[in-house]
Amino acid sequence: MSSDATAPFTDCPIPIADAKEILMGHGSGGKLTARLVEELILPAFRNRFLEPLDDQALLPVGGGRVAFTTDSYVVTPLFFPGGDIGELAVNGTVNDLAVGGARPLFLSLAFILEEGLPLAELERVIASVRRAAEAADVLVVTGDTKVVNRGKGDKLFVNTAGIGVPLPGASLSSRRVAPGDAVLLSGPIGDHGVAILSQREGIAFGGDVRSDTAPLHRLIAAVLEAFPDVHAMRDPTRGGVAATLVEIASRARVGVEVDERAIPVRDAVRGACELLGLDPLLVANEGKVVAFVPEEGAARALDAMRSDPLGREAARIGTVTGEHRGMVTLRTPIGGRRILDLPFGEALPRIC
Amino acid sequence: MSSDATAPFTDCPIPIADAKEILMGHGSGGKLTARLVEELILPAFRNRFLEPLDDQALLPVGGGRVAFTTDSYVVTPLFFPGGDIGELAVNGTVNDLAVGGARPLFLSLAFILEEGLPLAELERVIASVRRAAEAADVLVVTGDTKVVNRGKGDKLFVNTAGIGVPLPGASLSSRRVAPGDAVLLSGPIGDHGVAILSQREGIAFGGDVRSDTAPLHRLIAAVLEAFPDVHAMRDPTRGGVAATLVEIASRARVGVEVDERAIPVRDAVRGACELLGLDPLLVANEGKVVAFVPEEGAARALDAMRSDPLGREAARIGTVTGEHRGMVTLRTPIGGRRILDLPFGEALPRIC
Repeated sequence: MSSDATAPFTDCPIPIADAKEILMGHGSGGKLTARLVEELILPAFRNRFLEPLDDQALLPVGGGRVAFTTDSYVVTPLFFPGGDIGELAVNGTVNDLAVGGARPLFLSLAFILEEGLPLAELERVIASVRRAAEAADVLVVTGDTKVVNRGKGDKLFVNTAGIGVPLPGASLSSRRVAPGDAVLLSGPIGDHGVAILSQREGIAFGGDVRSDTAPLHRLIAAVLEAFPDVHAMRDPTRGGVAATLVEIASRARVGVEVDERAIPVRDAVRGACELLGLDPLLVANEGKVVAFVPEEGAARALDAMRSDPLGREAARIGTVTGEHRGMVTLRTPIGGRRILDLPFGEALPRIC
Repeated sequence: MSSDATAPFTDCPIPIADAKEILMGHGSGGKLTARLVEELILPAFRNRFLEPLDDQALLPVGGGRVAFTTDSYVVTPLFFPGGDIGELAVNGTVNDLAVGGARPLFLSLAFILEEGLPLAELERVIASVRRAAEAADVLVVTGDTKVVNRGKGDKLFVNTAGIGVPLPGASLSSRRVAPGDAVLLSGPIGDHGVAILSQREGIAFGGDVRSDTAPLHRLIAAVLEAFPDVHAMRDPTRGGVAATLVEIASRARVGVEVDERAIPVRDAVRGACELLGLDPLLVANEGKVVAFVPEEGAARALDAMRSDPLGREAARIGTVTGEHRGMVTLRTPIGGRRILDLPFGEALPRIC
């Protein structure tokens, strides 16, 4: 078994590798997504800005540098405990800029509406976008609205693209991650995915599980101020912390060793995951960051995370190594070790 | 009857004004679209960058200025005579930057794919995006791919956002349009809409009607080089030339007088429109520009248009006046006059 998200599908038990059409798993953040992107999309557009494959591109524009990113949001249901698609669309794009070391400034906002969508729901989403943009201190400056026939969409999809400026001194890229780096996580995982699932399936889990959707740029700026030479950051959304770690291990050609006991998971989330047969490491987050920090800055970076209201439960969860390059190794609570691998698809489609 | 796209819907014969849900007409580029945008979306986000309501925002970023725009594309069918959704998504966003006087540089590319989409169709669209980006000399630098369940989308939707830099000396905005300006049109209208309709309905019209989708930034740069003080430009897409003129009349509070005989329309398009009961002025274009030029520069600007391969059939179609402000007046071929008004919706949904 390989943990390389782009490995050939020789170990696939079902003939998914030869799929001739789009499967739900192509959108899951797992191996099928990686394969689609790396085999079909990237080869068409190879250029030096796209090549780093970070969550945002850093572009030379008019003498300065501009960070640029885009995401579409197709989450269902539109409204869920702790947030909605509008808030997600702002925070997700803000976070994609922030994890690249940029200060988010401006967003575009493009709706694809299904005929029959109650205007009240659209109004609610717009109000939520406004509140989230204000909270994240970004401006919505351009937009678009399209309508598709009933049955040809699903109420409301939204795309936000974002523009930011690089924070001075920051140089974040998966390619900089190196053996010896500490792996920091800003808080408990799995809340977003479990909140969506509980809403979708009408299951109330013990305790109040709410999406963690939040703008991370202030926490990230604080970390970079405390220790500017952070090597890379990622927000572990689709595919969860597992997808983030596997992607970094693969792209930076390093090993990542993680201590499963060190990973914060709320009891209610852990219970829900056990009930549903999900690994919290694979469940999406919308307000967490994973940081790869040289050892000498790890303590300062972790302190900075913990000083932010969104990072109070931050923890060091592992270390980057020069062994088992391309792989993520998990030390389990009972002292064993397992290779952390990604599923082809995942159990939670349309989570963001 | 009012020609103001934002007028209250007091003249509406059906109770569409009180719609409590999204109608196809909300995406048409007609009055319902204007109402949705101006009553629901804009009030939520008022800021000085959004306020000019041009097709792109001009933003201060890192000491320089950056032009920023977004559009989603939901055209059906995906492939049509003269183009496809991929080419449209590049050219449309390139053109939105260009009509603001910016040089297009970078695009984002975000797909929403329906489960079951043949991979071959996605590959074809991606290849088309690549070719169009190369032809327009822009780079795709960031992207996203989401998948929705079968029956919750329609094969493939795509969003492109674009970044550009303002051309030196250009200052284009609907607010600058003033009485005395000449109204120039870069070529024959209606080709795109009729091409889509012929493909969709399986009707072959006399002659080969193909979409006019094309990147206009070189033509526009040539016009601005010939006469930098052009007041405003627009690409007349959804809602056609009529929507463009009505929007400018409304936003700039000017009258626009147009000579219907001066408007170039290909015979096959005119024939198709007569057959279908469509007004070519209301049919979408994807490779045309309308320019509002001070009289002293009109001849030079028109010559520059005609020197570009995409503008060989450019024509002066009218004049901006200080009379009938907010209205577009059409001189008809038989010497009469009529007020050019927009429909609430239009006969051609999902044209782009």
